[in-house]
Amino acid sequence: MQVYLDNNATTMTDPKVVEAMMPYFSEVYGNPNSLHKFGTASHPALQKALDQVYTAINASDNDDIIFTSCATESNNWVLKSVWIDKIVNGDKNHIVTTEVEHPSILSTCRFLEDQGVKVTYLPVNEKGIVEAHTVKSFITDKTALVSVMWANNETGMIFPIEEIGAICKEKGVLFHTDGVQAVGKIPVDVQKVDVDFMSFSAHKFHGPKGVGGLYIKDSQPLTPHFHGGEHMGGRRSGTLNVPGIVGMGEAIELATKDIESTMVKVREKRDRLEDALLEIIPDTFVVGSRDKRTPNTMLISIRGVEGEGMLWDLNRYDIGASTGSACASEDLEANTVMLAIGADHELAHTGIRLSLSRFTTDAEIDYTIEHFRQAVERLRSISSSYAKVQPTPGGEAGECYMPHHMAH
Amino acid sequence: MQVYLDNNATTMTDPKVVEAMMPYFSEVYGNPNSLHKFGTASHPALQKALDQVYTAINASDNDDIIFTSCATESNNWVLKSVWIDKIVNGDKNHIVTTEVEHPSILSTCRFLEDQGVKVTYLPVNEKGIVEAHTVKSFITDKTALVSVMWANNETGMIFPIEEIGAICKEKGVLFHTDGVQAVGKIPVDVQKVDVDFMSFSAHKFHGPKGVGGLYIKDSQPLTPHFHGGEHMGGRRSGTLNVPGIVGMGEAIELATKDIESTMVKVREKRDRLEDALLEIIPDTFVVGSRDKRTPNTMLISIRGVEGEGMLWDLNRYDIGASTGSACASEDLEANTVMLAIGADHELAHTGIRLSLSRFTTDAEIDYTIEHFRQAVERLRSISSSYAKVQPTPGGEAGECYMPHHMAH
Repeated sequence: MQVYLDNNATTMTDPKVVEAMMPYFSEVYGNPNSLHKFGTASHPALQKALDQVYTAINASDNDDIIFTSCATESNNWVLKSVWIDKIVNGDKNHIVTTEVEHPSILSTCRFLEDQGVKVTYLPVNEKGIVEAHTVKSFITDKTALVSVMWANNETGMIFPIEEIGAICKEKGVLFHTDGVQAVGKIPVDVQKVDVDFMSFSAHKFHGPKGVGGLYIKDSQPLTPHFHGGEHMGGRRSGTLNVPGIVGMGEAIELATKDIESTMVKVREKRDRLEDALLEIIPDTFVVGSRDKRTPNTMLISIRGVEGEGMLWDLNRYDIGASTGSACASEDLEANTVMLAIGADHELAHTGIRLSLSRFTTDAEIDYTIEHFRQAVERLRSISSSYAKVQPTPGGEAGECYMPHHMAH
Repeated sequence: MQVYLDNNATTMTDPKVVEAMMPYFSEVYGNPNSLHKFGTASHPALQKALDQVYTAINASDNDDIIFTSCATESNNWVLKSVWIDKIVNGDKNHIVTTEVEHPSILSTCRFLEDQGVKVTYLPVNEKGIVEAHTVKSFITDKTALVSVMWANNETGMIFPIEEIGAICKEKGVLFHTDGVQAVGKIPVDVQKVDVDFMSFSAHKFHGPKGVGGLYIKDSQPLTPHFHGGEHMGGRRSGTLNVPGIVGMGEAIELATKDIESTMVKVREKRDRLEDALLEIIPDTFVVGSRDKRTPNTMLISIRGVEGEGMLWDLNRYDIGASTGSACASEDLEANTVMLAIGADHELAHTGIRLSLSRFTTDAEIDYTIEHFRQAVERLRSISSSYAKVQPTPGGEAGECYMPHHMAH
C-alpha cells in the first residue's frame, strides 16, 4: 500500500481536473488574445474558470482575480509591488509579517530588508498563532503592508485573519494574506474579511502545478510583477495558461462545493490517526489545538526520534510525510515553526507533518497507524537521546499543545 | 478545412508532448522538493527535461537553465533584476533595446523609465533589423544591459545576435536576447554567441502554455524575480511545474532534433504561399528579405486592405492569422514593426502575419492561397482607399523589402 500524507506540500491532480484540461492542449490551443476563432474558442472555458474561482471564495464583481503561475509569484508580486508603490515611490518604509510565513514571504522580506525596508517578523504565541492585538501593536504610520498567512503550512493552525483585517482597515494599512493552506481546505469568504490581497495555488487543492492566483479587493492598483502584453487588463502579462486555468477552476469548484461535508470526513480520519498515535506511542505530542487547525493537518513530535530518520522509515513503508514545508525539506534543519512556538532545539528536530486529503482512505489510516508505531519503536531502540530523557505522559487529544515544560 | 497560421502567437501542443506530460498529473504527483519517493519519483523526468533543453540549445555544464512560467517572466526577470543589481545597487543607469521588441520588454522598459532608468530604443533599419554597429554606438559606460531579440515576432527577421553579443562582450555590458521566436524555429547554439541571458517559451514550439525558461551563461548572479523556497538552487522559487517542464523538454527535443530538415519543409511551404500571394494579388508586399527570416513567417501587406478586415474575412474561412503580435491584437493599432521599418500609417494598417508550423500541410497552403485571394478581392471592392492609390508592381520573391517610395 502507498499512503500519501504530504498534501500540504502538493496534491494529486484530481483525474476529473485533468479531464477538464485535456481539450486545451491540442484541440482548443489558440492564444486567447488572438481575434480569430482558434483564440476565442477558449474564452468560454476561461470565463467558466474565472466564475468558478469567484464563486469559491465569494469574490465580488468589483474585485479582481488574477491568474498567476503559483502562490510564490502572487506573494512576490504583492510584497515587491507594495515596496515599489508605497516605499520606493511613497513615504512608507515598513512591513509587518510573521516568523512562520512560507519561505516565499520570508525570503522576499529579507530581500526587501537588503533594499532598506524595515520588516517586523512577529513570533507566534505558545498556541502557534499570531494574535490580532500583537499585529496592531507593531503597526506604525510608516507601515505599508501587513502580510499574515491564513493557515500555517506546517501546523495547520488557522490565524485570526478577520480580526487582523479589521485592524489593518482601521489603521489604513494594506493587508495581504497567503491563503495557500486555507483555500480549498476551509471556507474562505473574502466578503467577510477585510483582506486587500490573497494568494492561492491550484496544486494545493488537487489542481495542476504551475497555476495560482491573486485576489485583489476592489480591483485596487498594484504595480504588475509581469509587465508586457497587457493580458488580464494589464495586471499580469504573459500568454494565458489555458489548460492550467481551466484546471484550477475545476479543482477549486470540486474542493469547495461540498467543503463542509468534506471537512468532516477529512477531520474524522485525521482525528482518528491523531488519537491512535497519541494513544499507542508514549512521549508524543501534536502541535496546536485540534479545533483551530485545518482539518487535514497534524504536526506530531516524537521525543527521541529525529524527524528525518522517521521520514525515511515511513518512506520505506511507502508512506509519504514531511518534516515541515517541502521547500525546507532538503535543509535538515530544526522545524522553524516548532522553534517559534517555543520548542527546544532537540524537540524541534522531531516534528513530522502528516497532511491528509479528501482522497485519503480509512485503510490508509490503519496502515499508517501500524507502520508509524513500528518506525517509532525501531528508531527509539537505536536512539542515543531517547534513553536519556525522562518519559513524560503523552498529550491528550483535545489538549495537545506543546507541553510548557518542554519549551523554553 | 481549418488552417492555423498563427504559430508565432502560440502553437498546438504536440500530442506526443501531452502524452509525455500525462503521468505527472495524477500518478507521479509528489513535490520534487519532498524527500519521500512520491517526490523523488519525478526526478528522472525532470533531469531528462533539463538534459533535453541543454542539448537543444547546446548549453554548457557551467551554464544555468532555469524553468520559469513563460518568456514574459524571463524577460521581466532579466530587466528588473539587472535594474536592481546594476542600477539601484550599482553605478549604471542605462539600458539599450529596440523599438520592435515584444511588449514584455517594451512595457518593462517603460516601467523602468518611470523609476528613473534611461532607456534607448533603437529603430530597425529599412531591412527590419538593428545592426550591430548601431547598438555599439549607443553603449556608454553607464549602460547596464543590452536587450535585443533573436528573431522578430511580427516579421520573422533574424537579428545579428552573434555580432551584437561580441560587441557587448567587448564593451563589458550584459547582453540579453529574447529567443522566443528563434528557439525551436532556427538553430540556436549558445556556445557560438556571447549572450548572457536568453528567454524562451515552450508554447511557441509545440510545448504547453505556462512554462518557459531563462538561459544564464556561466551561471552568473542575477537577483531572483521569485524569492522563496530556494527551488532551482534559489534562482527561481515556486513548486516545480513538473508536467509543464516535462512537456517543454519533450517539445524542445521534437522541435530541434531534425531542425535543418524541418526548416526546409516549413520554408518550402511558406515560400510557395508567399510566391503565390505575391503573384496573384497585385500591390502586395512582404516585409523583409526571405533568407533573413525565420522559415515559418511572413508579414504581408496588401495595399488598400485593412489588416483587421482581412483577418475577419480569413476567420470566416477558418483561417487563423494575425495583424501582428497576439498581445497587440486587441488594439487595432498600426503595426508597430511596419511603422518602425518606415511604412506610412495607412500601409502599416494593412499587415497580415502568416506563421506556419511543422504541422502545416500542403493542402492547407492551397486552401489559404485560394481564400486569401478571394478575401482581398472582396475587401478591395469595398475599399475607399484602394481606388485612390496608383497600383504599383507586386514585390518580387527574393526582393520583397518594403518599396522605398511607400515608406517615409
